[in-house]
Amino acid sequence: MTVERTMPAGQVGRSVKRLEARKKVSGRAEYVHNIVAPGMLHVKVLRGVHAHARIKSIDTSAAKAMPGVFAVFTGEDIRALVAEPYFGPAFHDQPALALDKVRHFGEPVAAVVAEDPYVAAEAARAIACEYEELEAVLDEVEAMTSPVIVHEVLKPAGMFPDLKHLQGKRHTNIALDYQLRRGDVDAAFAAADHVFEHEFHTQQVMHTPLEPMVSLAIPDGDNLTIHTASQSPSFVRIEIARLLGWPENRVRVKVPHLGGGFGAKLYIKLEALVAFLALLTRRPVKWSLTMEEQFYTITKHASTFRVKSAVTNDGRVTGRRCEVFWNGGAYADIGPRVTQKSGFTAPGPYDIENVSIDSYALYTNRPPAGALRGFGIPQLVWAYESHTDMIARGLGIDPLEFRRKNILREGRPQATGTKLRDAEISGVLEKLAERLEWSKPFDRGTGTIRRGRGIAVGFKASIAPTTSMAIVNIGGDGSATLSMSTVDMGQGSDTAMAQIAAEVLNLETEKIRVVHPDTDTTPYDMATLGSRSTFHMGHAVLRAAEHARAQLAEMAASLGTPDGSNYSFADLFKKKYGMQAGNVVGVGSFIPDYASPARGTGLSDNITPFWMVGGTGVEVEVDTETGRFDVLRMINAADLGRPLNPAIVETQLSGGALMQYGFTRFEEMTFDNGVLLNPSFADYKIPGFNDIPRDIENHIVEARQKSGPFGAKGVGESATFGVSPAIANAIHDAVGVRLTSLPITPEAVFNALRAMEKE
Amino acid sequence: MTVERTMPAGQVGRSVKRLEARKKVSGRAEYVHNIVAPGMLHVKVLRGVHAHARIKSIDTSAAKAMPGVFAVFTGEDIRALVAEPYFGPAFHDQPALALDKVRHFGEPVAAVVAEDPYVAAEAARAIACEYEELEAVLDEVEAMTSPVIVHEVLKPAGMFPDLKHLQGKRHTNIALDYQLRRGDVDAAFAAADHVFEHEFHTQQVMHTPLEPMVSLAIPDGDNLTIHTASQSPSFVRIEIARLLGWPENRVRVKVPHLGGGFGAKLYIKLEALVAFLALLTRRPVKWSLTMEEQFYTITKHASTFRVKSAVTNDGRVTGRRCEVFWNGGAYADIGPRVTQKSGFTAPGPYDIENVSIDSYALYTNRPPAGALRGFGIPQLVWAYESHTDMIARGLGIDPLEFRRKNILREGRPQATGTKLRDAEISGVLEKLAERLEWSKPFDRGTGTIRRGRGIAVGFKASIAPTTSMAIVNIGGDGSATLSMSTVDMGQGSDTAMAQIAAEVLNLETEKIRVVHPDTDTTPYDMATLGSRSTFHMGHAVLRAAEHARAQLAEMAASLGTPDGSNYSFADLFKKKYGMQAGNVVGVGSFIPDYASPARGTGLSDNITPFWMVGGTGVEVEVDTETGRFDVLRMINAADLGRPLNPAIVETQLSGGALMQYGFTRFEEMTFDNGVLLNPSFADYKIPGFNDIPRDIENHIVEARQKSGPFGAKGVGESATFGVSPAIANAIHDAVGVRLTSLPITPEAVFNALRAMEKE
Repeated sequence: MTVERTMPAGQVGRSVKRLEARKKVSGRAEYVHNIVAPGMLHVKVLRGVHAHARIKSIDTSAAKAMPGVFAVFTGEDIRALVAEPYFGPAFHDQPALALDKVRHFGEPVAAVVAEDPYVAAEAARAIACEYEELEAVLDEVEAMTSPVIVHEVLKPAGMFPDLKHLQGKRHTNIALDYQLRRGDVDAAFAAADHVFEHEFHTQQVMHTPLEPMVSLAIPDGDNLTIHTASQSPSFVRIEIARLLGWPENRVRVKVPHLGGGFGAKLYIKLEALVAFLALLTRRPVKWSLTMEEQFYTITKHASTFRVKSAVTNDGRVTGRRCEVFWNGGAYADIGPRVTQKSGFTAPGPYDIENVSIDSYALYTNRPPAGALRGFGIPQLVWAYESHTDMIARGLGIDPLEFRRKNILREGRPQATGTKLRDAEISGVLEKLAERLEWSKPFDRGTGTIRRGRGIAVGFKASIAPTTSMAIVNIGGDGSATLSMSTVDMGQGSDTAMAQIAAEVLNLETEKIRVVHPDTDTTPYDMATLGSRSTFHMGHAVLRAAEHARAQLAEMAASLGTPDGSNYSFADLFKKKYGMQAGNVVGVGSFIPDYASPARGTGLSDNITPFWMVGGTGVEVEVDTETGRFDVLRMINAADLGRPLNPAIVETQLSGGALMQYGFTRFEEMTFDNGVLLNPSFADYKIPGFNDIPRDIENHIVEARQKSGPFGAKGVGESATFGVSPAIANAIHDAVGVRLTSLPITPEAVFNALRAMEKE
Repeated sequence: MTVERTMPAGQVGRSVKRLEARKKVSGRAEYVHNIVAPGMLHVKVLRGVHAHARIKSIDTSAAKAMPGVFAVFTGEDIRALVAEPYFGPAFHDQPALALDKVRHFGEPVAAVVAEDPYVAAEAARAIACEYEELEAVLDEVEAMTSPVIVHEVLKPAGMFPDLKHLQGKRHTNIALDYQLRRGDVDAAFAAADHVFEHEFHTQQVMHTPLEPMVSLAIPDGDNLTIHTASQSPSFVRIEIARLLGWPENRVRVKVPHLGGGFGAKLYIKLEALVAFLALLTRRPVKWSLTMEEQFYTITKHASTFRVKSAVTNDGRVTGRRCEVFWNGGAYADIGPRVTQKSGFTAPGPYDIENVSIDSYALYTNRPPAGALRGFGIPQLVWAYESHTDMIARGLGIDPLEFRRKNILREGRPQATGTKLRDAEISGVLEKLAERLEWSKPFDRGTGTIRRGRGIAVGFKASIAPTTSMAIVNIGGDGSATLSMSTVDMGQGSDTAMAQIAAEVLNLETEKIRVVHPDTDTTPYDMATLGSRSTFHMGHAVLRAAEHARAQLAEMAASLGTPDGSNYSFADLFKKKYGMQAGNVVGVGSFIPDYASPARGTGLSDNITPFWMVGGTGVEVEVDTETGRFDVLRMINAADLGRPLNPAIVETQLSGGALMQYGFTRFEEMTFDNGVLLNPSFADYKIPGFNDIPRDIENHIVEARQKSGPFGAKGVGESATFGVSPAIANAIHDAVGVRLTSLPITPEAVFNALRAMEKE
């Protein structure tokens, strides 16, 4: 039998408009900020004013006495509720409210709950906290050896079971040191014709989701329901259950739409405090951050990258040593995983026989750093692609030619030993070259206005092994519902996943209803992060839809439907139940093949389910008198396998590139002795429409991820990779100055130009 | 491998306390009445004041002009939204607001929506409706031939596809005429030694759920979410989708706890109007009925039952003719199904070779009647068990002995031809006899105070074929969630179903989380009605849990867990995922074997998945001077297979019996020319604690439903069956008067005693 195929095939590959578009533009999409629970209390917190200080006393009496205040809590109240109130995905190191000391500026110290959020805010200001200020460590390299200790004891979570044995043997500012050794890097340097060594820096920035973080916990008998703007509902359920000592099924986590995530809303953030306060008050408790408060909550790692390469006269890189220092701030969040998972790509997408990598996750007294669109890769590409250009220039080789000579090609082993499969690094590089007309003459400007071109490519492994599950439910009229815990935070996952289900079931994508995460009913998904959803959840949805289709085919066969007849799903149900009734439930589960890196070596033959590849080429114009520069053209290219939805993919490419463009040119959290000076959009500049290149091209490089669902793989981060070094390389190409720290401001260019003149 | 079996087995059969008990007694259980949606409007309706009238005009101008009124709608506004706004499970005959005419007193005629429900109520009173009054038909037997036509055209739903051909050939007051012929009943009467013929009546009563009906529709982009106090969320989704011409998956129906249902909250009630008004206003719309309004919404069928039996000298019933007239009121609701599904048991649980049944669903100008705890069976048992006693007395045979002689025994065919299996009719009868010490001398009283005993047994087929589905989800820590669309309306289904899942998974019942109906995620269930859930959903849950368990066993095998080792679920997940992660999703679906009755004959060899059997024995004391009587003892017995939860089962038995006790003695909707005179608890008496027998016993007759989950079957209705005739039989036993109409009031007894004296 065949099920009805009157619908045109080809849901996959079609630029389906986002399913939620109409709801969003008409203001009817659901966000946690809009949810009101009867009897709900609002939280406002008092935040610490030092980067590092011991808490001597907290006086909440004035706050408690204010009319309208329901209650005031400190970390000790929470410790009275649960003995170990420390959370975190990699380390259990973070208290919901500071205990004993504050470790970064802006850390929550006490919380007020009131029915009116303005009352709560005023009362929070009335709390008096006395501190004994401590010396702070702020720089990631200094943290390696500093006498200032951020955490006395390391508390690795289950993710890092091997770390327990290091207890007491290592400086506790080093949360994790990831090592990889391949070949003989010392021999390579000894035999090298040339050795190049450089150091690069990136600054601390933040995610800026335009929907500030928000969580609402509602006590529900013996259970707790948490509505939260989270990218990882399944993780929140597990972590809150662990904190409370409850089974998972007593915690229900629901996520509606998200106004952006970018990694900020991952793992556990506000959920712990609202959960504790809901249990303490027995009332629904909501915590909505202001934009300012987001700066204190989660950020992107500042980093220092020392890279040293052994190169032959003819331009082959034979050895590379990488030392990467990640400034994780006061709490580990997922930093150790960034250090490890991105660390092994630190040598870049190049075919280098001898490699040594040391990647350190460091505690400092800054606001915590975690995952941010690229999971450390943009910091690495910034360094290795600047370094690549510097080597090429040093050897007098064209940077494109130099890359062609060293690029990692299909089937060749990456630093871990894993052979490259389905990764069009070369294709991306060539697409950029073609669009920039690299081989043709280029107008380099005259006088004080000079022009240059720059190019950069990067790659990223997917996080592994992780699992995704999905349920596809066909109703008695043949209409379908897709239940999954993937969070649509603007990236279009609802639409893309519906396309996969629609393709399998031969329905129109627009007819699929997508059910948003609710851990009571949508099955487990590791999280919406690292561009993993299209591949992992895509497979789970594909399998769930196939499972449903197989059951429908069985139903048809058992009903004696003649082979080849053209029954619709609705007809089948009617035939089986005598009326419009029943469901068919398809379940899909996916976990990729993966080989864990061998202990000690960091080596493995199967380190990632797929590779993300992206690159950027730019043309810049620099005013040598002022340092002012413009990016005239920006060309982004990526290998994302086969695009499920080309229109959405293009917005992912331009969105990723422009986000990194902001980090490259404008954004920087500035500190004075650990005190953040610019936690507002007045002082912290994100790019506006007038700040972005007028000429942006986005290219999907023809490719196919053979192991992906319909040949697809993730793309949410790929266009971030090459932006920063492409711009630095272009500025160097234009005016001959090399910038090694982000952001690249006109001031920095001006200073570099003046310094060059003095030489 | 074996999964952990450290928990004691035996979840099934344990009197587990209700899972929701703590939430309910602490006032934290969720009900629709408590749900507030932002921007929500409240509905109040103007109701018609005649039993039958043509609407000449509706003037809403005064209502619309009132401050605070958002809008006012009539049936025509709804007809402008959807061309065919008629709903109903059996017939599409009921408009959300009256169109052209009103067909019963209290029918909704116009609706006001306002943010304040009191404003809405006042505005509804300001609507002026002009009527042309029409003659009404109120009696079910008169309706058969009345010139008064309730509906000009019959509109059978998909449930009755065969009815279309009757269009125009039959009086349209007859919604359905169910016929069954078995053997040769005329020959049996011709050959009979004795013929007994009687007529019995029951009155119109209502369900009285203490949580009045309530529905809330929230427009959600292109979709509609309906929170409703419904026993049938899956049906509401399908019916609302049909009314709107939408696919099912655009309608989401959610049901929290219910404060009683008893059949009142089945199929579709308030949901149609709130759905229409939510679309018309683009605002959330909530309609909460007052207790008074419930009287106009759905009731229990008044009925007339003419029964005639052919009997031999030695007390064998050889033939029986049954004519049952069901007063369905103005809209069919599920009445035609009552007529048909209960109709075929009209001859009672007796072994009678020759049977003729005619069962008529009739339209009248009364408030609609539908399903009420027993689905017509209590009306039938009232008649056939009174009749049985009257035959026995007429022949001078002890009523118990007479029943023993004629009772339907295991393996013998019931009227439809279906052979009785797993139905302890005899066991129930003997249990009552034993507890009443029927064979021993009995104190019959003296003077004006006389005592008597009565006994009655009944049986019921389950509705079929219907399907149930369930999902059991095991979390990464081994905790389990059960998702199903069965509605816990106080009968304890959450607990019973969790016991089944717990038994299969070897967990503690209290550790299972039950997810309440949400048609987006909890799979299809026909409805929570007719005591079908324990059997049908019980099987689905059993299968879902077994499916989950099988996957866990597979997981253990694939992980190389040595056979016989004692891994917990949590260990398995940790071994597979390297951490607490993942889910196992088990899906279960159940549809019983069933053979549709052969067309025309009503005969079938497999008419029901299981039989419910219940009976009651009473001792009464009658004051012959005043007619006042007391039920001194009430003994209820039922065959429910193996009890899953004995404590809950006992409350089901006493609850069912006491509800029928109210219908037997107190409750009666009284009309004057179709105008309801007593729509309030001041005038409509339901039993209070001082009204019920002081001595109540409930007995579970040892039995096992071989085809049931763990040997169980449904029990929610069984104890209602015998109450009314047992009391009438006992009164006859005490004072010699025979009452053939319900309710049995002291006044009726008094009048019967006086009439007997005159004879």
